[in-house]
Amino acid sequence: MKNLLIFGVGLIGGSIALESQKKRMFNQVIGVQRDGGTALSSFVSNGMLDKISKNLNDDIKQADLIVIATPVAQVQNILKKIYPSLSSRTIVIDVGSTKSNIMHFAKEELKEKFSQFVGSHPIAGSEKHGPTAAIVNLFKNKDIILTPEAETDSSKLEMTVRFWEDLGGIIKTMDPLEHDQIFSTVSHIPHLIAYNMVNLIAQKNNTDTLLEFAASGFKDFSRIAGSSPEVWKDISLANKTAILNDLDLFIKEINKTSNLIKNNDYVALEKYFDVASKIRKNWIKKN
Amino acid sequence: MKNLLIFGVGLIGGSIALESQKKRMFNQVIGVQRDGGTALSSFVSNGMLDKISKNLNDDIKQADLIVIATPVAQVQNILKKIYPSLSSRTIVIDVGSTKSNIMHFAKEELKEKFSQFVGSHPIAGSEKHGPTAAIVNLFKNKDIILTPEAETDSSKLEMTVRFWEDLGGIIKTMDPLEHDQIFSTVSHIPHLIAYNMVNLIAQKNNTDTLLEFAASGFKDFSRIAGSSPEVWKDISLANKTAILNDLDLFIKEINKTSNLIKNNDYVALEKYFDVASKIRKNWIKKN
Repeated sequence: MKNLLIFGVGLIGGSIALESQKKRMFNQVIGVQRDGGTALSSFVSNGMLDKISKNLNDDIKQADLIVIATPVAQVQNILKKIYPSLSSRTIVIDVGSTKSNIMHFAKEELKEKFSQFVGSHPIAGSEKHGPTAAIVNLFKNKDIILTPEAETDSSKLEMTVRFWEDLGGIIKTMDPLEHDQIFSTVSHIPHLIAYNMVNLIAQKNNTDTLLEFAASGFKDFSRIAGSSPEVWKDISLANKTAILNDLDLFIKEINKTSNLIKNNDYVALEKYFDVASKIRKNWIKKN
Repeated sequence: MKNLLIFGVGLIGGSIALESQKKRMFNQVIGVQRDGGTALSSFVSNGMLDKISKNLNDDIKQADLIVIATPVAQVQNILKKIYPSLSSRTIVIDVGSTKSNIMHFAKEELKEKFSQFVGSHPIAGSEKHGPTAAIVNLFKNKDIILTPEAETDSSKLEMTVRFWEDLGGIIKTMDPLEHDQIFSTVSHIPHLIAYNMVNLIAQKNNTDTLLEFAASGFKDFSRIAGSSPEVWKDISLANKTAILNDLDLFIKEINKTSNLIKNNDYVALEKYFDVASKIRKNWIKKN
């Protein structure tokens, strides 16, 4: 593939650019400047990008691969924008943390060209964000979830697999709805809960004292509360059903704990903690 | 001080022993074997302890400093046990994560000898536990909260300060109730929520798949869910009032988030995340 066009040169889009350049995977890596977004010119100077798109319709037409790596709320508009100029050889992928809504938008906006779209979610990230957060090796040995559908063009799917593998990823395929339920539980809920934890402290009248004594447990726990508010606002709304369901289940777990404490049920409380402790210990052995 | 007697040779008690030996702070470091606890003989062989207590009443009598580093539910019984043999020169300290209940027990059990007790809480720990988890430098530059009261003997308080400083700690003093409220929010609640998070996954019917896709966010977030179930069961019950109050407040934060998601209130949702993100980022700069 010759030309790579990236919408959303942030942590993920920028890391795709960096790694592609390092491995000389494309002749040209072009970034799309977002209105009001971080200025991209310095990322041309440092070689992350070959150029910033000047004539977007031309660059869409010439692209072999288009990566949409913006916050998920912007994906639909971008799909709408690329549709008229999209050549039949071009592959379009996204990198969003939600998949049902994105597959839905792709079907709606790309119409008869939907077969050219391969939904992707690299399980790689950081609480850091923006193009300055981009790094090489971000995708090395990381799972890349693809959500192909019956209509997906098989050779385009194959090339997408190869693209992600060239970046270092490990391909897994999944149904979009299953994807959203799984990542609600293991990723979206931990992020929301981390935000809740910091806000619990924020709304107290001794926030500074509390933060003074917050130690390593809080440090690790709250790391993901440093994540991009815009990205996580979009994800929360895009994966609404699964997230609201999991938040309800989470409150049930808290209530279970509260009741055991209220009733001084130390046997059941220790058992409840023990279940979690054993699962976490087994998990960490393998991860 | 010549003789150090340690009840509870685990992560904290063991690390106190190791560091004291390394810095030759005592002539003798003696560990008390707990019925059914980890056998301590190998920790005499490796020099962490000089001996295991054989005649406990004698060792109590001879001790210059007694450290009670067991899970907090056992502290009262140990105070009761040491009282009859406790010489007037001996300092007694604990290392518990809750302070109001321990100060109360100390008053009750040590009676006229209560002035010899200095409540201590080193803000140092790990999700690892037991004597094999003990390490040197555990207390280096870590806050050590002391909760002296009006009755506390001032020279014994001073010697306790010096003891913790010799171990590398930074002394802060606090009212026991204030301590318990602060550590409910910044330590106890994060631990409970981490246990809740893992149990949310445990009670789903696709636990293995979920754990397969859990990534670095979950890893950091759940680290403290590997903590000792016994220790945390004790802390939960010992700091009941503050913890139940904070769990209620936490549920309110979750409900706030749920409602913003339900109402598609993306402006308020992003703002809510932004408050947390900014606080976390400022905090991490200083920590």
